[in-house]
Amino acid sequence: MKVGTAGVRGRRPDTLAVEEPLEIRVAGRPLTITMRTPGDDFELVAGFLAAEGVIARPDDLLAMRYCADATEQNTLDVALADGVEPPSELMRRAFATTSACGVCGKASIEALRVRRPYDIASDQVRLTPVSLAALPDRLREAQRVFERTGGLHAAGLFDASGGLLVLREDVGRHNAVDKVVGWALAKGLLPLSGHVLMVSGRASFELTQKAAQAGIPVLAAVSAPSSLAVELAEDAGMTLIGFLRGETMNVYTGAHRIEADAPVM
Amino acid sequence: MKVGTAGVRGRRPDTLAVEEPLEIRVAGRPLTITMRTPGDDFELVAGFLAAEGVIARPDDLLAMRYCADATEQNTLDVALADGVEPPSELMRRAFATTSACGVCGKASIEALRVRRPYDIASDQVRLTPVSLAALPDRLREAQRVFERTGGLHAAGLFDASGGLLVLREDVGRHNAVDKVVGWALAKGLLPLSGHVLMVSGRASFELTQKAAQAGIPVLAAVSAPSSLAVELAEDAGMTLIGFLRGETMNVYTGAHRIEADAPVM
Repeated sequence: MKVGTAGVRGRRPDTLAVEEPLEIRVAGRPLTITMRTPGDDFELVAGFLAAEGVIARPDDLLAMRYCADATEQNTLDVALADGVEPPSELMRRAFATTSACGVCGKASIEALRVRRPYDIASDQVRLTPVSLAALPDRLREAQRVFERTGGLHAAGLFDASGGLLVLREDVGRHNAVDKVVGWALAKGLLPLSGHVLMVSGRASFELTQKAAQAGIPVLAAVSAPSSLAVELAEDAGMTLIGFLRGETMNVYTGAHRIEADAPVM
Repeated sequence: MKVGTAGVRGRRPDTLAVEEPLEIRVAGRPLTITMRTPGDDFELVAGFLAAEGVIARPDDLLAMRYCADATEQNTLDVALADGVEPPSELMRRAFATTSACGVCGKASIEALRVRRPYDIASDQVRLTPVSLAALPDRLREAQRVFERTGGLHAAGLFDASGGLLVLREDVGRHNAVDKVVGWALAKGLLPLSGHVLMVSGRASFELTQKAAQAGIPVLAAVSAPSSLAVELAEDAGMTLIGFLRGETMNVYTGAHRIEADAPVM
């Protein structure tokens, strides 16, 4: 119910952003559980596995299916193609070197940054402030659900001329990005050279890493980036833009990709 | 640098919200890595372990220390008291029943909801709309860092009369809540009967569960809750408030704890 300081204002039920757990399995073995907004689950899982460095091409995935016994579609099992190393081995290896405190986490924390499959630094895409300033409105126009519930994060993939390729929404920012990358992977579009990923909230390390793993040269966020997101973007040769609102933006790294708009004649 | 559609506006560097990885270990064994804003790490780890149901009292923790070899303070090792079951065993058990796809995740997904240590439903605390409406401003006044970087989430613990006990900030909403709960645990205040937890963003399942695990009867959020947060709050007997802004709020569950303000004489 809606309550105000002057009393109950109404009893109209709100539309809630749906959040449900999704357990991701590889070859029947539980890998992780993510809290996500149902829909585009196959893309979500494909994007998640791409971000983890497990898969890179559509052929790396043999099949995905919801577990048959589940009453709800909350468990997805993935069959990887022959020769694709399952994630559990990768994860075990990342932790194996740090199981004694003597190594002190350096190896596993460093593992957060590694295995970058694409060369982003040499991406020649150029963008203008005017074209970038148009992205938030385009993202918002495409967000029907967001307007209704106010509780969903969005990620949109744009081409260099500002055209929207795909928009995905989720209660989790990282899920929205996974869904976008999974969509692109299924279409054989990885690496996403020359593209811009725009996110509705902040640019965290996690989102920046997911963009880097997909070969995206430009990440733009409505709100602030974190210090580690800036470090990673610098290291990966990405352009990182924050506070993209109205007619201004902050460019944290890769400013060479932002070119002045042609003067009005 | 700051860029506008009319060109470069300035080169003043921005203050960034600091994000660094923290690896949490128990008895030398890596448990998880969280991306957090450094500061109050001991509280963060204590709160995380409380939310996972591993510890409930200050005495459950024997010691915490940063690993000595690390150049940065990014690995914390926890020694649990005798008789406290380490989390790795709990987690292994949660997954053990679901390692064949036939069980289909029901057990592990259900495990997300269980082991609620405190009876929240019988919490007799009562609040008025006027006292609740005052909380966002109090939270914001206390947020010095938030004002500067725009990139930090906040969680504040209030008593029933609206007094702020503690505020914690972090790039991760869940970390801010863990820090608050860890602070309370160290002070021997768990369960937090009669208290209100206020968060700066949305109310997700994860945050609602952390509040429930700490025995907090009222969770208030500036933005929307998710569907599963509402389900969990209902099930746990919590009062869940969303869109607490200005003079209004939406009460999703436990509305019996909201009492009309006394009429002005």
